[in-house]
Amino acid sequence: MKLPVIAVHGGAGNVLPTLVSNAVQKEAHHVLSQAMEDGRGCMLQGGTATEAVVAAVTVLENHPLFNAGYGAVLNVDGLPEMDACVMCGQSLESGAVAGVQRVRNPVQLAYNILCHSDHAVLLGAGAESFAQAQGIPLIDPKTLIYPARQDQYEWYKAQTSRAAESFFPDEFESYKFGTVGAVAVDMKGHVAAATSTGGMLYKKYGRVGDSPLVGSGTYANNKGVAVSCTGQGEYFIKNMMAYNLYARIYYQQISLIDAAAQLMEELLPAQGGHGGFISVNREGEVFLGFNTAGMYRGFWNETGKHTALFKND
Amino acid sequence: MKLPVIAVHGGAGNVLPTLVSNAVQKEAHHVLSQAMEDGRGCMLQGGTATEAVVAAVTVLENHPLFNAGYGAVLNVDGLPEMDACVMCGQSLESGAVAGVQRVRNPVQLAYNILCHSDHAVLLGAGAESFAQAQGIPLIDPKTLIYPARQDQYEWYKAQTSRAAESFFPDEFESYKFGTVGAVAVDMKGHVAAATSTGGMLYKKYGRVGDSPLVGSGTYANNKGVAVSCTGQGEYFIKNMMAYNLYARIYYQQISLIDAAAQLMEELLPAQGGHGGFISVNREGEVFLGFNTAGMYRGFWNETGKHTALFKND
Repeated sequence: MKLPVIAVHGGAGNVLPTLVSNAVQKEAHHVLSQAMEDGRGCMLQGGTATEAVVAAVTVLENHPLFNAGYGAVLNVDGLPEMDACVMCGQSLESGAVAGVQRVRNPVQLAYNILCHSDHAVLLGAGAESFAQAQGIPLIDPKTLIYPARQDQYEWYKAQTSRAAESFFPDEFESYKFGTVGAVAVDMKGHVAAATSTGGMLYKKYGRVGDSPLVGSGTYANNKGVAVSCTGQGEYFIKNMMAYNLYARIYYQQISLIDAAAQLMEELLPAQGGHGGFISVNREGEVFLGFNTAGMYRGFWNETGKHTALFKND
Repeated sequence: MKLPVIAVHGGAGNVLPTLVSNAVQKEAHHVLSQAMEDGRGCMLQGGTATEAVVAAVTVLENHPLFNAGYGAVLNVDGLPEMDACVMCGQSLESGAVAGVQRVRNPVQLAYNILCHSDHAVLLGAGAESFAQAQGIPLIDPKTLIYPARQDQYEWYKAQTSRAAESFFPDEFESYKFGTVGAVAVDMKGHVAAATSTGGMLYKKYGRVGDSPLVGSGTYANNKGVAVSCTGQGEYFIKNMMAYNLYARIYYQQISLIDAAAQLMEELLPAQGGHGGFISVNREGEVFLGFNTAGMYRGFWNETGKHTALFKND
């Protein structure tokens, strides 16, 4: 297949035509498209897959429709608390941040860690100090709050007293998703993956899901595949979902499509997990899978640019 | 082989007879032995492998010889900053904490997360709030400082101005290791793994290594193996070391010994990584491997109790 190829997601979950207005649908297609355009444009100009996924995720972080960067859900204290990861499939180097509040684009901080530090994972205020040392401006977390997220937070806080006691009230269900991610293969055939998230609405105790964890929510290896996941974080950690896909491809010597089908048709249903993932290999094959009502998604390969939201899109 | 079986480590690194006094050697053998005794005793009384590894790691955390719990190395601010993880190979549930300072036994907090929350990873102050909500007393981090660690910190701080600028000064080399861990298989044939660490001396920016990351420093799955790693954290993340061992066993259908040999003889040398790991499967086979000068280690199976420090022990 002709390279480069890029795919993006804006979260899997209760994405139903009846719940998403026409205006939002249109906007979603537009921003998914824009993210791919930036990522692909980067690669067409000779940029790496790693630079491309960072560029694409930056667009998704900056748009309030998704639960990442500007527009991230608010934690129990009414503030954003974000995680991100980026991994290069050529060098296997990665960068990740967890629990950051004062950076506009967590994925760019993660990329900075990949490029300019000997470390792979930095946490919270420490990660923000590193950002500052690297010349990334620190911002007031309140400037990341999209008004509708504030309303969602207030509504959630008011409407259930259970919120104060429970990790996962049922009412949470439809707000659990919204993570963004991108995978790409560049013109040299190197793959990369990036994921960014605001995590769970009203989360507390510094909870971190699978997104920033290499092998769980994000993984890239030229020898197999680049993957970015979205869904029930704890479930994806339990199953090492991203590396799980890689290991099936690498060790069983089966195709991306067959390996992805195993995850979607066997592993996820067997354990009752919900979510999805996007993946691409160095040949430019793409697989976008989910077992939820829908997933904000898109891919751009030699057949052109495609974006979709619902199951039957 | 007759169950239960347990193995422990207290870190791989520059463990040389010339650098470790006779008194310390004796103490190391003693505490490794005590850790196994507590873990094994737990299983002989019907406890699970998960309970056993938590019991064993608790003993290692409580002893100042190792870089975990009491006696953890100090970060750039002169305080402990600890990570821990525990995983059950039967349920695949895990619990992990990163960047905690006010708990005496991070591994017990990790176990509490495994048992009493829907989450897998909690960070820093948030994790400490969860501890408090669970009735785990919060302590002054200064009470975790072992006097020799304070001296080490002062010496390090004074003797190199590079410390302020660099992540990995050369002088760091011999202080990078000291993580503790345990793996076990209980009388029902279930496996578990736990790892706990103070991370790197003089670390900053909220750096986290592989120890608390499922699949990197810690992994357990009845279908393959339980693993706890120690060494250059970033290298172990890059190679998904713990899950890497599992995937070789599960997908290639080779023995633990053969899979472990592949890691030790091919993967580690090929990439210049340094460290080690302990592992056990549900049949009670044990493999303890390292490519450093030595590793504080021990195992207890049907052949009896064994502890060792140096390469040729």
